[in-house]
Amino acid sequence: MVETLEEEFLAYIKKMEALEEALALVYWDLRTGAPAKGMEGRSDVIGVLSEEIFNMQTSEEMAAFIAGLNQDKENLSEITRKTLEESQKTYDLNKKIPSKEYAEYTKLVAQAETAWTTAREQNDFAAFEPFLTKILEMKRKFVEYWGYEENKYDTLLDQYEPGVTVSVLDSVFEKVRDGIMAIREKIENEGVKPDATILNTKISEAKQKEFSIRILNKMGFDFEAGRLDETVHPFATGLNTGDVRITTRYNENDFKMAVFGTIHEGGHAIYEQNFDAALVGTPLANGASMGIHESQSLFYEIIIGSSLAFWKSNYADFQAITKPAFDQVKLEDFYRAVNISESSLIRIEADTLTYPLHIMIRYELEKALINGELEVKDLPKAWGDKYEEYLGIRPDNDTNGVLQDIHWAGGDFGYFPSYALGLMYAAQFFNQMQKEIPNIDAIIASDDYSELKIWLTEHVHKFGKTKKPLEILTDTTGEGLNPTYLLDLLEKRYAYVYQFNK
Amino acid sequence: MVETLEEEFLAYIKKMEALEEALALVYWDLRTGAPAKGMEGRSDVIGVLSEEIFNMQTSEEMAAFIAGLNQDKENLSEITRKTLEESQKTYDLNKKIPSKEYAEYTKLVAQAETAWTTAREQNDFAAFEPFLTKILEMKRKFVEYWGYEENKYDTLLDQYEPGVTVSVLDSVFEKVRDGIMAIREKIENEGVKPDATILNTKISEAKQKEFSIRILNKMGFDFEAGRLDETVHPFATGLNTGDVRITTRYNENDFKMAVFGTIHEGGHAIYEQNFDAALVGTPLANGASMGIHESQSLFYEIIIGSSLAFWKSNYADFQAITKPAFDQVKLEDFYRAVNISESSLIRIEADTLTYPLHIMIRYELEKALINGELEVKDLPKAWGDKYEEYLGIRPDNDTNGVLQDIHWAGGDFGYFPSYALGLMYAAQFFNQMQKEIPNIDAIIASDDYSELKIWLTEHVHKFGKTKKPLEILTDTTGEGLNPTYLLDLLEKRYAYVYQFNK
Repeated sequence: MVETLEEEFLAYIKKMEALEEALALVYWDLRTGAPAKGMEGRSDVIGVLSEEIFNMQTSEEMAAFIAGLNQDKENLSEITRKTLEESQKTYDLNKKIPSKEYAEYTKLVAQAETAWTTAREQNDFAAFEPFLTKILEMKRKFVEYWGYEENKYDTLLDQYEPGVTVSVLDSVFEKVRDGIMAIREKIENEGVKPDATILNTKISEAKQKEFSIRILNKMGFDFEAGRLDETVHPFATGLNTGDVRITTRYNENDFKMAVFGTIHEGGHAIYEQNFDAALVGTPLANGASMGIHESQSLFYEIIIGSSLAFWKSNYADFQAITKPAFDQVKLEDFYRAVNISESSLIRIEADTLTYPLHIMIRYELEKALINGELEVKDLPKAWGDKYEEYLGIRPDNDTNGVLQDIHWAGGDFGYFPSYALGLMYAAQFFNQMQKEIPNIDAIIASDDYSELKIWLTEHVHKFGKTKKPLEILTDTTGEGLNPTYLLDLLEKRYAYVYQFNK
Repeated sequence: MVETLEEEFLAYIKKMEALEEALALVYWDLRTGAPAKGMEGRSDVIGVLSEEIFNMQTSEEMAAFIAGLNQDKENLSEITRKTLEESQKTYDLNKKIPSKEYAEYTKLVAQAETAWTTAREQNDFAAFEPFLTKILEMKRKFVEYWGYEENKYDTLLDQYEPGVTVSVLDSVFEKVRDGIMAIREKIENEGVKPDATILNTKISEAKQKEFSIRILNKMGFDFEAGRLDETVHPFATGLNTGDVRITTRYNENDFKMAVFGTIHEGGHAIYEQNFDAALVGTPLANGASMGIHESQSLFYEIIIGSSLAFWKSNYADFQAITKPAFDQVKLEDFYRAVNISESSLIRIEADTLTYPLHIMIRYELEKALINGELEVKDLPKAWGDKYEEYLGIRPDNDTNGVLQDIHWAGGDFGYFPSYALGLMYAAQFFNQMQKEIPNIDAIIASDDYSELKIWLTEHVHKFGKTKKPLEILTDTTGEGLNPTYLLDLLEKRYAYVYQFNK
């Protein structure tokens, strides 16, 4: 049986995907209950699988596939062509860096993550500074190897959010910031603060789980193609489209963590359960980007799950399951308390309104770092200044400031914007969805949200990584990234929560 | 850094072991809760990992290691030398078969297992017969390729129980059969049958689990280096010495399944948790043989867990946990009921006394098949005749007869004897242990059985696969395989259970 080069390439890719799936299972297992004493042995497994995948991504065989298939690109199937492009992108990303420098960088990042952990615990930025300085230096050099057009930061951005550039972000983020600031001013000047203490009640893990599973079922999460487990830092992982796993964490003193967390991860998971079957076994069976992935989780968590319509429909159920905790709490008061907004220092604890500000701070700082306009030694002060400017508060130590996120220690510059983009994408999708499905509130009032899922599958999920983020947005909504929809939604929501006039 | 050939070889082996560990995790996951729809994708992962391991076992690189290291064998460390022997054994096993025939065989076995499943469901031996005939034909041919000395069957036996031969088995099995037959005659003629109906009571899964975990802790199963999950067909799997997983199945109408099953798998698991650390990353971090592995599970399940001393010590706990189910049941009656013995057709449901007879039947049949003294078409009749001779009953259909086990469909000839050997090894170890630890009943009466575990670790566990089964037996007990200890134990136990005079 003589295979064509295209068939050989697809078989090669399928093997790599199988190794990725094995690796994903190892990680899922580590995070959901693998016994502590097995970790050392398991890290060898991670090492072997990762190395094998890396070797396949950068092999001479891969180089030959790229060279050979590019000669006849127009005759390839669309899936092969896009798979080839993805493979080439990965190949270039790794091979354009001299292998000695690449090895040095890998080692540096591993050391930096350890140094960051200690520095954060001990509130000691100075101990982390030399690592971050070195990472930044190498990252700047890598951008030179990879090449760039308008802005050096674009090259990094493209690794997480293909096609999105600094010029897009600068314009959009300015509008978002101004809009959020205006809402925050209204809250400050005219708002009636909700009573958050009504949420201070203990809800057992079993009750939280029962409610979460009920919502996952309504959303259309397929439990025959997935499962729900517990972990310390929740995540969703798609091993294959028939096996997408959600994890969550129960805090009996704060039901919001598991309830909204499960809805969030459920949104990621539904995305991965609904890639087109034709993409299976290729790197295209993946989210289009970090931001598009986040748009699916935030669509369910923020747009739907934090809406008044959602709680109108689900509050009675929630009261019944958690009985008698909320017997005396009225829907409106509950809803307002859940959606409270306050300036805070820690990104991952921030509410919907302030969250984008945390992201913009990081974006501006890392853009300046990469372009040589800011040096690492000046970072803590710059961080504090930005927090004061955007959120009116200043961290009194680096643990609650510049040391709070692991991203830079891991060399992940260009990653943060995707979190805020996800929220904008979600609001823009929802605006379009409302035009095409006029009775959304009636659907949310029902036991079956699958019409929403079907719409998202048709417009987003099924394409996997065959389309770029802005392509999905334009094809679906008829326009480019437009932050107005997010701002409108936020203004409407917070006007209700804080009882001010729009 | 220039590596020696020995270092290179050990790194190569370590990589293979890591792939084996990944594969073992995939299997564990499949059997404990992987979502149904993910199976298809997961089978590609199994295929890729298995192929990678097979390729490494039989590669030219492996051939070069074997050739190179054998030239300087006396200068290798003991671990490298034994690892080399294991690797060479695997290499020869695969490479002595022409690759075309090997591929044909692999395909045949996969088809035969499917055919067996259907044939068994439909009670249709004729549909399975051509597959088994072909497997047997190939297996006979393979034995010629592999070579043999006294008896063709020895070559197959050696794959599961290195060093054990037909001449050993024939002599030992004859004694065991005669001894068991004599006990069965006593039961038949003089025995008072225990009342088994007292066990017919419903015990919740949670209670069964609580008792099982209590016993696992007493045995010294390390929960920081393992976990307990549920499955359909229970097993234990050692991913690495720090991560050994037990599975069990709860039947609320038959607590014995989970309670004795967990103790059994716990015995396997404790073995795997206690291999010497120096063996980690080599194929020597494995059980010495199928039979030695089984001796460790049966030691805990049959020798300890089904003993009167064990229940004297644990029955009050068991009663308290399962309260009020056994409030009215006296220890003696409970113990007798648990140890009832009866002729039955199905091996995996057989009791301790009749189990070895089921094994001997299979041993005699497969030995005759391999040596050309019995043909597949005559197998159902021969099976029935043997059951009538050994157990006094005859299956009225093939589903309850020759079609009950998957082993032959999988080409596993030579495997069955290990089950019976395990029981003999266990009794012989226990006899020796009693000489060296005089107060065993006092230990069993306590909350901590770790002295037993330490003894087993010192004599069995720590050696992993560095010793052959009979070597372990001789080094530990000062004599070769001696079935007297098993027969003495059985006679004593059943004399009590059936109240006859020894």
